[in-house]
Formats: sequence, C-alpha cells, structure tokens
Amino acid sequence: MESLKKRVAEFSQEAHDLYLNQSVPFLEGSPDPLQFYRDWIGPNKPCIIRNACSHWPALTREKVGSKVITVAVTPDGYADAVNGDRFVTPEERRMSFSSVLDVIEGKEHVGVFYVQKQSSNLLDELPELTDDLESHVPWMSDALGKLPDAVNFWLGEASAVTSMHKDHYENLYCVISGEKNFILLPPTDRPFIPYGVYQPAVYRQRDDGEFEVVNQSDSEKVPWIPLDPLDPDLDRYPEYRRARPLRCSVKAGEMLYLPSLWFHHVQQSHGCIAVNFWYDMEYDIKYNYFQLLEALSEVTRPP
Amino acid sequence: MESLKKRVAEFSQEAHDLYLNQSVPFLEGSPDPLQFYRDWIGPNKPCIIRNACSHWPALTREKVGSKVITVAVTPDGYADAVNGDRFVTPEERRMSFSSVLDVIEGKEHVGVFYVQKQSSNLLDELPELTDDLESHVPWMSDALGKLPDAVNFWLGEASAVTSMHKDHYENLYCVISGEKNFILLPPTDRPFIPYGVYQPAVYRQRDDGEFEVVNQSDSEKVPWIPLDPLDPDLDRYPEYRRARPLRCSVKAGEMLYLPSLWFHHVQQSHGCIAVNFWYDMEYDIKYNYFQLLEALSEVTRPP
Repeated sequence: MESLKKRVAEFSQEAHDLYLNQSVPFLEGSPDPLQFYRDWIGPNKPCIIRNACSHWPALTREKVGSKVITVAVTPDGYADAVNGDRFVTPEERRMSFSSVLDVIEGKEHVGVFYVQKQSSNLLDELPELTDDLESHVPWMSDALGKLPDAVNFWLGEASAVTSMHKDHYENLYCVISGEKNFILLPPTDRPFIPYGVYQPAVYRQRDDGEFEVVNQSDSEKVPWIPLDPLDPDLDRYPEYRRARPLRCSVKAGEMLYLPSLWFHHVQQSHGCIAVNFWYDMEYDIKYNYFQLLEALSEVTRPP
Repeated sequence: MESLKKRVAEFSQEAHDLYLNQSVPFLEGSPDPLQFYRDWIGPNKPCIIRNACSHWPALTREKVGSKVITVAVTPDGYADAVNGDRFVTPEERRMSFSSVLDVIEGKEHVGVFYVQKQSSNLLDELPELTDDLESHVPWMSDALGKLPDAVNFWLGEASAVTSMHKDHYENLYCVISGEKNFILLPPTDRPFIPYGVYQPAVYRQRDDGEFEVVNQSDSEKVPWIPLDPLDPDLDRYPEYRRARPLRCSVKAGEMLYLPSLWFHHVQQSHGCIAVNFWYDMEYDIKYNYFQLLEALSEVTRPP
C-alpha cells in the first residue's frame, strides 16, 4: 500500500514534469479551432485568451433593470460549501436586476449577494442580453463540434466565494468587467485533494435578519471538498502539501479556458460581471482514467 | 490488493462500456482534420479510412528492381518476438528489390522474408518512390500540426508475423495491395497483457542453411509481451481472458488509424504491400495516465 501511495504521488509529479505549465499561459485573440483543440482541449490544459470578449457591451440598468433574476444569498459569501458537517447551499432569492445593482453599489443589506445560478440563467432569465452578448463562442463551438450546454451569468460582491470543486464541462469563463481570481488544480492532483460526504442543508434568513442553516433531510448526502485552498488545514489534510495549485487572474476582456475536471476556487473583484459557457465534456479515455485515479485516491488516503 | 485488482479490471471494462467500439468503424474518404482529431486521435480510438490511398501507384520491378533494400529474415516468420527466454530479432540482409520480389513470387529459399525496417526506410532506401507515393498524409499532418517522423515500407510473405507490441506513435497504416490483418487491444487493457524481460538475441543463418540464435550479450534486457494472441496460453496468463481484442482486416486502398499505445499483432496476405506513417505521439495527460496504469498492472499481477 505504501508503494502504491508513492507511485500515485509520482504520477501527479510526472504530470507537472511532462506537460503542465507552471503558470496559466496567455493567447492573443480568438484561436484557430483545430489548434486550440490540439493544444489545450485535448491535453486538458488551461489558458487565458486575451482580446476574446472585449466587444461585449456593458449591461445597463436601462436595458435589464426591471428583469427579475435569481440571487444566491449567504451570511459569509460561501455558497455551495462545507460548513461543519454539512454542505450548505445559499438561499435563492428572486430580485430585480436593479435591486442587485443597488446592493453592489453599496445599498445597506444583510448577507452576501451573488448572481451565480448555474442553469443557463443568461438565456433563461436575461434573454434580451443575448442580442448583445454572444450565445456561444464560435471558435470553441467549432473546435468541439457543438453548442454550449449552458451559458451562465455571474455578478456579485467581493466576498462571494466559489468553494473548490470540479465540473464535468469544458468551461470558457469570460470576464466582462472587473476581475476574477482562480486557484486551479489539475485532475492529476486528485490524490492530494480531500473529499468528505456531507448532509445537505440550505441557508434561510429569519425575520430578525439572522441566517439559519436548515437540513434538507430528504436529500442524499453530498460528496464535497472540505479544504479551503486560501487557508488549507495541513494538519488535517497533510497530502495537500504535495498539490501544486496554479493561481491566475482573469481581467475584463479576457477569457479563461478551464478544462473539464480541473478543480477550481474562485474569487472576484466587487461587482465583477462575467459570463461563462459550459460545453459538455466527452466521457472518453481521459474520464475513464480519472475515474480510476479517484478510486486510487480513496484507497491510498488515510481514513 | 484484491480490491485494487478488482478496481483496475473494472476500469478496463468501463473503457469498453464508455467509449470503445466493439469493432473498428469505417470512414469514407479523407476526413476533415479537426473532426478526425476530435473523434479519433483525441479519444485514442482506431478506425479504417476507405478510399484514402487508392490513388497510389503499383511498385514495378522496372522502376525500383535494382534498388538494394534491407530485409528481415527469420526461420519461422517471427521477427522481434519472444522465443523461449530470449527476445530474438531477425537477420537483416541487404538485397535488391528484384530478389525480394523473386522470393515473394515463389523462388526457392530458406526462411521467411519481410521488408519491415522501421527507420523511415521508404525515404531512405526507396527515395524514387516518394515521387509517386505521398511523403505524408495531408489531412493527418494538418490534424497533428506536424509531418510524420517516419514513413515505412512493408512487403513480405504470408507467414511473416509482427508479434504483439505497442508504439509511441500515432500510426496510419495504408495497404497498397493485398490485405493486412490486425489484432488490436486498447491501452486500457494493459492490466491483462503479460510482460516479461528477455535476453536480446539475433537470428543468423549458418553456411548449412540452418538458423541459429546468437545472444547479444552486451545488450540490456528487453521488456516484451510473451503472449501470442493467435493462441494465448491462458493457463500461464489467465488475466488475458478479460482482454477484449478487436480484429480487423485492412484491404488495398484502405488506411488503418492505429492510435498511440494500442497493442497490435499483424499478419498479412502473401506479397502484401503497405506503407505506414508514424507521427510522434504527444507525451500528455493520456500518456501520464497510461504510465500509472502500467505500474498498477505490474503491482496487481501475480508474479
């Protein structure tokens, strides 16, 4: 078992030596679809594309102020995150776009607000924007031979945090204004990333303004990552010492290609506006190998 | 260890369930480079392309008869194969192309002859052919963004066999005349494929016509696959029962895309002429994962 654990750790090391970059590289302008597939999607490596979405218009209160959108509200900015022995999701509140902008612009409020609904909210909730914003990224759709499965809109306060997780999507994350800050870990670092299984719960703001956590007792337990990469508890999760997180900042007009199954933790500048495109990943040989790595990671981790 | 072994076997099973085909599919005509990358190279899946090399001319005695080429000669057709406790390579003989054609056409001889030298022999030994034959496959070079590393020429007797092995190349195998028969195993079946380490040796025909095996005592031992997929010794290698070989026949005018790291065993019709293009593989995440699988395969196999 010790030799297996050692071999798995060597595997993660080899990934960095063989093909991963020590920082996230930049490309200039919209790439050629085939070259992008060959250099980034196939090898499952992140990059930032500059001058790729700078022609998108600013969102105005005039245009969409009266539209009602879904906002995630939490006491501390941590939506979809482990809190003690529970996995707590935010209170979802329906508000006008104008009211959200009021909060962003400093109107007194309780809790942290984040427009972050991940169910194609851009097209569902703000369809008028798709006249201005593109409904897909043409070179990415060409590369993958399909349209995005979801287009999501993000707008929130500086203290809103997306806890570390991975998605089953090829992700293009476009910053329209402000700045997003990512901590990224490759799938090959999976052996160093702890998972637990948690009781699902949801925040609910009481009439007195305080938040309570309400168990969703009819829901199945949720596997999630308890580790906070901003302040990792290395006594509890010593394997994480071997992980090699990449940090990157994505600025207005830039687009992060976040490959499928990469772990990511996200923060942002106050009022940052972003749109991301989720393209379904392929359940191919890389996914097959990742599943094996997941199993090995659980086998070789001390309980 | 038993549960690890079980998990590794499940992994190979999942590969077949998730994305592998039960037979090798056919494409019609030269594919679009991006689509070919996305559908076959990226996912590391073989296919046969029809009407892809039918415009290549026949080779004539008039044109290249006097050219001297390298021929592999063995007593039994097994070049580069395990024989007892040794890995035996063929006697390499320099002959005119005409003399090889004489052998193919039935002239009495001892041993089995195979033009199979894998060091870009087409360009080195028969450069005049490259006027007629293409020196690369344009859509494949476009897809991979590079030219082939080697172009090899194959011509041999029906009893010449290529023993099971894998290559670190993306391989396009074009049959000009006759037929090649492949047994293919995906890299994910690695856990079921036995490897041994063998003393290198070489065949040498004595003056009396008999072949002897001469140890290359100054050479390092060679890892190779002792199993013959035509007649697998399942008492000795019981794991091979779980392997799921694909068989395919590639006929004149057809081209097999044989992905990197796929195990293959090759036979052919008598006098079959073929040209193959080796493009360097990428040492990327798939290779990284395969290296881990190799290590697991050795750990979980009974000694």
